[in-house]
Amino acid sequence: MANINTNYLKLPGSYLFTEIARRVADYSAQHPDKKLIRLGIGDVTQPLPAAVTAAMHAAVDEMASAKGFHGYGPEQGYDFLRSAIEAHDYRARGMDIRADEIFVSDGAKSDCGNIGDIFAQDNVVAVCDPVYPVYVDTNAMAGRAGDYDAQSGKWSNLVYMPCVAGNGFAPEIPRGKVDLIYLCFPNNPTGSVATRDQLKAWVDYANRVGAVILYDSAYEAFITNPDVPHSIFEIAGARTCAIEFRSFSKTAGFTGTRCAYTVVPKDLERGGASLNSLWNRRQCTKFNGVPYVVQRGAEAVYSPEGRAQVRETIAFYLNNAKVIRDGLQSAGLIVSGGTDSPYVWAHTPDGMDSWGFFDHLLQKANVVTTPGAGFGPSGEGYIRFTAFGGADDTAEAVERVKAVL
Amino acid sequence: MANINTNYLKLPGSYLFTEIARRVADYSAQHPDKKLIRLGIGDVTQPLPAAVTAAMHAAVDEMASAKGFHGYGPEQGYDFLRSAIEAHDYRARGMDIRADEIFVSDGAKSDCGNIGDIFAQDNVVAVCDPVYPVYVDTNAMAGRAGDYDAQSGKWSNLVYMPCVAGNGFAPEIPRGKVDLIYLCFPNNPTGSVATRDQLKAWVDYANRVGAVILYDSAYEAFITNPDVPHSIFEIAGARTCAIEFRSFSKTAGFTGTRCAYTVVPKDLERGGASLNSLWNRRQCTKFNGVPYVVQRGAEAVYSPEGRAQVRETIAFYLNNAKVIRDGLQSAGLIVSGGTDSPYVWAHTPDGMDSWGFFDHLLQKANVVTTPGAGFGPSGEGYIRFTAFGGADDTAEAVERVKAVL
Repeated sequence: MANINTNYLKLPGSYLFTEIARRVADYSAQHPDKKLIRLGIGDVTQPLPAAVTAAMHAAVDEMASAKGFHGYGPEQGYDFLRSAIEAHDYRARGMDIRADEIFVSDGAKSDCGNIGDIFAQDNVVAVCDPVYPVYVDTNAMAGRAGDYDAQSGKWSNLVYMPCVAGNGFAPEIPRGKVDLIYLCFPNNPTGSVATRDQLKAWVDYANRVGAVILYDSAYEAFITNPDVPHSIFEIAGARTCAIEFRSFSKTAGFTGTRCAYTVVPKDLERGGASLNSLWNRRQCTKFNGVPYVVQRGAEAVYSPEGRAQVRETIAFYLNNAKVIRDGLQSAGLIVSGGTDSPYVWAHTPDGMDSWGFFDHLLQKANVVTTPGAGFGPSGEGYIRFTAFGGADDTAEAVERVKAVL
Repeated sequence: MANINTNYLKLPGSYLFTEIARRVADYSAQHPDKKLIRLGIGDVTQPLPAAVTAAMHAAVDEMASAKGFHGYGPEQGYDFLRSAIEAHDYRARGMDIRADEIFVSDGAKSDCGNIGDIFAQDNVVAVCDPVYPVYVDTNAMAGRAGDYDAQSGKWSNLVYMPCVAGNGFAPEIPRGKVDLIYLCFPNNPTGSVATRDQLKAWVDYANRVGAVILYDSAYEAFITNPDVPHSIFEIAGARTCAIEFRSFSKTAGFTGTRCAYTVVPKDLERGGASLNSLWNRRQCTKFNGVPYVVQRGAEAVYSPEGRAQVRETIAFYLNNAKVIRDGLQSAGLIVSGGTDSPYVWAHTPDGMDSWGFFDHLLQKANVVTTPGAGFGPSGEGYIRFTAFGGADDTAEAVERVKAVL
């Protein structure tokens, strides 16, 4: 008799965005006349940059001829893309990251989940609270989270690092021992950023205790403050303690086009083994690379035209963030994030709980948000707005929200 | 201190195709003037069907406009593609498989590897010998294979089912208990197929003992014999014991375009849990779907033009298989496969071992093949030729091989 992985049975209910989709679908079915504005799930809405679609068209044409056809590519990604990433995202910013430390993939979600494959089950995992649910759920599936307690909303074996208004949404270094530490800056969901000094403290801690930092910088393109680091590898010592996840999803509108990358430095060793080698083995064995057409599209993100187009789109979304932030503040809500991030994190008013405020905004303002509690117990009392909508929709949504506060 | 997954350290040397690539690169570096013909790795060479590239161009154009833009898609795949698969690959052949049992993914390699996530570590795994190495290596990584013995080339906890000339390359049902059974027909690497009666025996066995059959039918498009089943779901009872992996890679030239799918019937339960639900949860948590542009390309495989173009390409490759098969036989080699499969499986001559014959053909005939021993101990004494080359190259390769036998 085949036995299932019973850790799956411990997972509570649905994945957050599935639950939101369900509530929205139910409401829409009952009120088909209402025009919803979605500032909930962090999905982009602006088209792919013209430089990207031009490159994809050219690549599709290549695939249509025997001479230009590309079959299996390198599991790690084509050199043309890895080299472009090295040059523009790392060397141009003074970081010593080489192409063979960069693994191109189909998504930061996949990589954040799959990275657990190369680690033992007995590692102690620390996560921010609130947190992107994928870190928690994938560790629960792998048996690292222990058991879920519905009352506290916590897993027995995870170390939670609260990120709340009281500590400026900055996780504090755990007192007890931890082995794997998920950090995400600019943060999803709080929109907070980490300073160089804060990251230095994490790197020093990880090197001291032998922990590995799993650093998600999927939103680095939204950083406007020149003092905020874009990468963990801007911090001295990170090459011996950190893995970084990056994505084209939010940078260049690739949420439906699927391309990301993970950086595993060759200096990163644990138990005498190179984590770069382990991850390479994992990817070569369980993955077959990203579509050629998509990699050519991603390469075009780094062309002069592509970079200009990306800057324009990011500026567009950051303006939305400002509209949300300013509008909510003018209505009396306490907000953070939204300056170096596409996410605005707002306190719920009048002691409402997150899902209550979510339902209120859905039903009264017909605006879809994301309840903070869906990201962890310390997200209770907050709600997330995203800046990825259209400009008119965003402005209208803010007016509607103000009207029902 | 973070601990690594030490199962990775047990993996012997390189993944087969990495080792082949290394030997070929070494030879090419020493003999840059030699023109190699590659009949080794199972990679296609014919361009994408015109219907597919037309659909991809149209989809890229959609992604270039705010109105046509697609962000995150359903993790399980778009309904348009799942419905096309249901209609053409299953209902048209009389099988009762529904769209919500079909999970679109980036590759059968990914799915064959990732499927282990939903099963416990203590399952006993049976594999054919020789076998596609991904089944073995991914179970070794997950701790199901035990320890590797270099002398026998076997893992201590795997059950090996020899597929050799003596049993017509058909695995026999194990005497001892097994829980997960990987079957692949048309087979990679031997090119053999399974009859309806043989599959019925497997399905009956699996239902009796509660095992789950992991059925890889990535090569079903090459079946020409009307009596050979294309899917495990043609067999009564399979809905309660089988998961099927399919791919557009070999069918429609998608090795560099990346689209596949896995069928998990809703009737398949173990330990009171629905495997369809578990796989859905796995995919929703650790995967973000296949690029919209690629799914539109895959959908076009089922259009009247797409189907005609695919048939033409498959016929082209099958003719190559016939050229290889006939040529090797005329030179006195004993061969099998190559009629309902793109793979021709040949005995090595004069008691040569697989890698010896591989090196001989590389160095004397400048033809790249795949050594049978790379697929498992019972592959020793065989070598694999693939029919995925060009027609002229294939004919020339066969002549070169004949000249050095």
